[in-house]
Amino acid sequence: MSHNTFGHLFRVTTWGESHGPALGCVVDGCPPGLKLTAEDLQIWLDRRRPGAGKFVTQRQEPDAVRILSGVFEDERTGGPVTTGTPISLMIENVDQRSKDYSEIARAFRPGHADYAYFAKYGVRDYRGGGRSSARETAARVAAGGVARKVLGEGVTIRAALVQIGPHAVDRARWDWNEIEKNPFWCPDAAMVDVWERHLEATRKAGSSTGAIVEVEATGVPAGWGAPLYAKLDAELAAALMSINAAKGVEIGEGFASAALSGEDNADEMRAGNDGPIFLSNHAGGVLGGISTGQPVVARVAFKPTSSILTPRRSVDESGAEIELRTKGRHDPCVGIRAAPVVEAMTACVLADAFLRHRGQIG
Amino acid sequence: MSHNTFGHLFRVTTWGESHGPALGCVVDGCPPGLKLTAEDLQIWLDRRRPGAGKFVTQRQEPDAVRILSGVFEDERTGGPVTTGTPISLMIENVDQRSKDYSEIARAFRPGHADYAYFAKYGVRDYRGGGRSSARETAARVAAGGVARKVLGEGVTIRAALVQIGPHAVDRARWDWNEIEKNPFWCPDAAMVDVWERHLEATRKAGSSTGAIVEVEATGVPAGWGAPLYAKLDAELAAALMSINAAKGVEIGEGFASAALSGEDNADEMRAGNDGPIFLSNHAGGVLGGISTGQPVVARVAFKPTSSILTPRRSVDESGAEIELRTKGRHDPCVGIRAAPVVEAMTACVLADAFLRHRGQIG
Amino acid sequence: MSHNTFGHLFRVTTWGESHGPALGCVVDGCPPGLKLTAEDLQIWLDRRRPGAGKFVTQRQEPDAVRILSGVFEDERTGGPVTTGTPISLMIENVDQRSKDYSEIARAFRPGHADYAYFAKYGVRDYRGGGRSSARETAARVAAGGVARKVLGEGVTIRAALVQIGPHAVDRARWDWNEIEKNPFWCPDAAMVDVWERHLEATRKAGSSTGAIVEVEATGVPAGWGAPLYAKLDAELAAALMSINAAKGVEIGEGFASAALSGEDNADEMRAGNDGPIFLSNHAGGVLGGISTGQPVVARVAFKPTSSILTPRRSVDESGAEIELRTKGRHDPCVGIRAAPVVEAMTACVLADAFLRHRGQIG
Amino acid sequence: MSHNTFGHLFRVTTWGESHGPALGCVVDGCPPGLKLTAEDLQIWLDRRRPGAGKFVTQRQEPDAVRILSGVFEDERTGGPVTTGTPISLMIENVDQRSKDYSEIARAFRPGHADYAYFAKYGVRDYRGGGRSSARETAARVAAGGVARKVLGEGVTIRAALVQIGPHAVDRARWDWNEIEKNPFWCPDAAMVDVWERHLEATRKAGSSTGAIVEVEATGVPAGWGAPLYAKLDAELAAALMSINAAKGVEIGEGFASAALSGEDNADEMRAGNDGPIFLSNHAGGVLGGISTGQPVVARVAFKPTSSILTPRRSVDESGAEIELRTKGRHDPCVGIRAAPVVEAMTACVLADAFLRHRGQIG
Repeated sequence: MSHNTFGHLFRVTTWGESHGPALGCVVDGCPPGLKLTAEDLQIWLDRRRPGAGKFVTQRQEPDAVRILSGVFEDERTGGPVTTGTPISLMIENVDQRSKDYSEIARAFRPGHADYAYFAKYGVRDYRGGGRSSARETAARVAAGGVARKVLGEGVTIRAALVQIGPHAVDRARWDWNEIEKNPFWCPDAAMVDVWERHLEATRKAGSSTGAIVEVEATGVPAGWGAPLYAKLDAELAAALMSINAAKGVEIGEGFASAALSGEDNADEMRAGNDGPIFLSNHAGGVLGGISTGQPVVARVAFKPTSSILTPRRSVDESGAEIELRTKGRHDPCVGIRAAPVVEAMTACVLADAFLRHRGQIG
Repeated sequence: MSHNTFGHLFRVTTWGESHGPALGCVVDGCPPGLKLTAEDLQIWLDRRRPGAGKFVTQRQEPDAVRILSGVFEDERTGGPVTTGTPISLMIENVDQRSKDYSEIARAFRPGHADYAYFAKYGVRDYRGGGRSSARETAARVAAGGVARKVLGEGVTIRAALVQIGPHAVDRARWDWNEIEKNPFWCPDAAMVDVWERHLEATRKAGSSTGAIVEVEATGVPAGWGAPLYAKLDAELAAALMSINAAKGVEIGEGFASAALSGEDNADEMRAGNDGPIFLSNHAGGVLGGISTGQPVVARVAFKPTSSILTPRRSVDESGAEIELRTKGRHDPCVGIRAAPVVEAMTACVLADAFLRHRGQIG
Repeated sequence: MSHNTFGHLFRVTTWGESHGPALGCVVDGCPPGLKLTAEDLQIWLDRRRPGAGKFVTQRQEPDAVRILSGVFEDERTGGPVTTGTPISLMIENVDQRSKDYSEIARAFRPGHADYAYFAKYGVRDYRGGGRSSARETAARVAAGGVARKVLGEGVTIRAALVQIGPHAVDRARWDWNEIEKNPFWCPDAAMVDVWERHLEATRKAGSSTGAIVEVEATGVPAGWGAPLYAKLDAELAAALMSINAAKGVEIGEGFASAALSGEDNADEMRAGNDGPIFLSNHAGGVLGGISTGQPVVARVAFKPTSSILTPRRSVDESGAEIELRTKGRHDPCVGIRAAPVVEAMTACVLADAFLRHRGQIG
Repeated sequence: MSHNTFGHLFRVTTWGESHGPALGCVVDGCPPGLKLTAEDLQIWLDRRRPGAGKFVTQRQEPDAVRILSGVFEDERTGGPVTTGTPISLMIENVDQRSKDYSEIARAFRPGHADYAYFAKYGVRDYRGGGRSSARETAARVAAGGVARKVLGEGVTIRAALVQIGPHAVDRARWDWNEIEKNPFWCPDAAMVDVWERHLEATRKAGSSTGAIVEVEATGVPAGWGAPLYAKLDAELAAALMSINAAKGVEIGEGFASAALSGEDNADEMRAGNDGPIFLSNHAGGVLGGISTGQPVVARVAFKPTSSILTPRRSVDESGAEIELRTKGRHDPCVGIRAAPVVEAMTACVLADAFLRHRGQIG
């Protein structure tokens, strides 16, 4: 990960601001010969799209992705296929509502990146958060669609929300089928109403709330990842922490492992037909930075959206003290829309680990 | 981070196995003209050194570091100084006790990297964990000593343990002066006895326990880090997650932020003489991936050591089912010795962010 | 350099095929606050543009560059300025003449990348050479325009052709003012006619010819570049050799230095007001991989265009033997249009070296 | 290539100064399971070793390489094998003759890196050239030995000198068997005497002379290398230009291709049993940056050694004008000892290209 690029053999470079003409990414290093159309990517973008529910921003963006390079079709390829050259993906910004930004043009919104960008660069595109906007994650989701093609059918990656505000799901009631039935990616049917009431109250109060997303990748064979500084869990940590508003990442048992004894934490093994069978998965599918063949499990904590209607104390570029409330079209819980982004980043990390493993080991 | 190298402008490449003749690292990209002697690095290594207390491994390693390149002294330099060329650091392994490894040579210890390495590479140096041994962290600590020179006196980095097993410190009693007074890097004097009893019981039971380490870097100016995939918090997440036994990383409020409201989480600002004054630090000193001038705060969760005396079910390379207990000189709580490593990795990440910031911005 | 990205702190990622909808690049790591408009880049693209003379391809491409991100203007910035975030540049392909490619779709043109791409990827976009087309160099030229902004007014980079076919310029008649007066970037007024006749004969014969381009960068201060594997000359060599049809790169005296004695080759120094004054520049401004303050001088050899009308023996994808002549709109001497590309790559390498030097040294 | 590291999946980081205690490298990303002993590497080092003839430096260095990590042997591995973890190689400096360096400590030797290092870093290890010494190439040769193991028996890499001073070999007399029979890696038996007399005269005059080395790699399959900025020829150009005293690199026909017509330069193809048969190899085995299956051919020009006994005008650190002659143990023709280094760098580039190709394509 460096600058606006992540990955080593499967590399993604993203670009674009919230209110510029477009945003996009270049996916480089993709293996050739994979069937790929814009529709294959659009299905993932549609899951992330704002405007899909009342608890996400009301900005209306079709998020239609175009493939500008790296895919070719002729009579022999049986449809468009990747050529091994860079895949340029572009999403035009359509609904940059012509708005008066004069109020925040020089103000630093508390909890936002405003001050940090200004301190670093001396100039910032304040319209809609500029580069720090969650709009950028559309490019990640598109790239994740390509990564899924690289991984193939054998690897399944899916995310769920496991906590919104103080309300955590009951893991005993976990049902992956539920996540498609509610707007919160909630795997616990009984929790949906609780979250809905909590979000409704949050929205009415002009406030916001945090969340925790869990992602699981099944079908990852043992051996991916590379000690020591390309450990699969370290790569995941970086990729997931790079998502807007992320403040924590954990693998498997994560922070809870601190309270465990060695007996309780170690995953015992028994003989299986195809490698060992693990009797538990406290490790979250990664040991020594290398996948074990068990499901890779990670969680990401998202802070509450900083854009709230409640006035907060701050300063502006001149150093003057101000009171600021952030109007506009904001998610009360940015974690909800983060679920597809968490999936996409996980897919990209795994695709890269797969190619690197194949490179070194064959 | 890739392979066994991390960092971009300030780069560290480590090498070595637990029972090889030596281990070390190459620190590349260090600015020239910094005073640097082996003694400057040794003070940090001595803090990490095993054998310093009864709750860490009894393996006796002097961990004497040698500087093999990159430092030069003549009459004008006023002592050895860095030359800007790669600094090669080497630590010889002295106490590789001649031991019979036949018992574990083909066995996969549950919770260890044994199986994952074997699945990936088809061959592994099983002596003392080979490359996956925590011995490797000595090289990180040495590199961290160089990083501190790059950062200079203005930046202070220090770590404390905030939890061992289920016992967390009381932050109201936090006193940084305490951490030098006990063998646990414990900032809460009242917790020392509790931890000591817990560790004594753990040791007697042949068991192990997890821990959480907190690191704080003060004096970091606003502006370090670079969105989006070189975010300071993403770099920290990767660096800290790459430490042996780490299972979680969080910045500032971290996972707790999920339960907060936007009002509670946002750090308000007032006018200060030298940039804004923040009224709280839920962000942990990083917004939008860029430092804010507040202390950078991160926490790392360490799982309990997998090497325990209690027999656990496992398999061996042939696939046969076995029962395994790990004898040998092991820490009951690997988190204790991780504190200096967490400091070192934080120092390296910050030194790299500093140089990169200076490169882009001047 | 890796995949389709080059540079370390100043990084360029290019994408696009000859006959796709567009091509472009992402310029990442650019310092903030630099004035930058599309017009600033267009002037360089216009110099590279095909269709400008009868000795370059007749494909008519306006090569109008759009800036899609990374530049922002508000009332205070005094015009559009870079923000430090990635600059996405896009050039639409307009004149992809609807052509029948069936003749070459499965054939490997001798001297072209056709066979190599097919052998590597198993699939290739054969329309106009696909990714291997010189169209891609438009993106390099645009990126070079940004690099020149980073370098500022103090650094001047200019290229000249010093040989076309067997006809080399007379260096005694070198006049930089001449290069704008003829379509060949020729600094030797007396050579223009010779080249024109040679090219006319080449064109009429349906043949092609090679060329050598020389580039000079003045105003580069001493100290840029970093031993050993980021040597300024090694970076230049990679960047220049990556240009289509390049087959050789030399610095300063280059290959001629092999025949020199140490006395003749070493550049003696005398005292100057601002560092040493060199009495010659056999080194081409680089010693030990680091700039000396003298002009940086490099030369690049370009092979003759492989697309010729003369039938050549080849094979096709099925392995069948064929005879092939390449019709279409091709340059008889690709080296002519390479001059602005050589300038652009040199600018990018120097901008990157500048930022890296500033990062390490301050 | 960045800092002191080169390669992407097969990565080499070198360290060490001429007069420090040791030098070495870390070879990272090596596939596991390859048989590797210090003796396997020593054979290549012995070919590069100074003191082997009267035309190379008389410094006596055994250049005994030690493997400090990354190789493991137990009863099942059938000898020491690579484990996939970093291979640390160290060569101790033995013959750092205790010499009085006061004469050159503050002087800038013309043609040397002295001034450039000083201008960049403000401090330099002047003993024997410090980091800029050709001693560093011992580490490259050791790494090249590992790279050859990765490439396996199928790929053969060998270098020859094709020119010393003004005297070029006659390619019609080329015989690879000759290069082992003379101290100059000369493939033209009739040229040996000429070179010997030229070198003897050069040595007696206290002068030096340049040279050109040609390297050929056979057995490289079609498909290695990756457009556009990881082109095989661009990678080779960077790797070869990074060698001390290199001033030019060319592939295949190289600079001579500028004078050719398209008909003469294109390599025609006929049907073969295993891919096309090329009727010539002007391309030097690389088209579009990708190997074609033909021998990869490159040439590197080396300038004459700058260390000569003839007094030359220069300045010192204070800016004062001086006259300087470089006494000491220097090669009259550094190109001679460069041949094994050219081989080694070629091997490393190819090994990296092989692994990357396997990563992307499988």
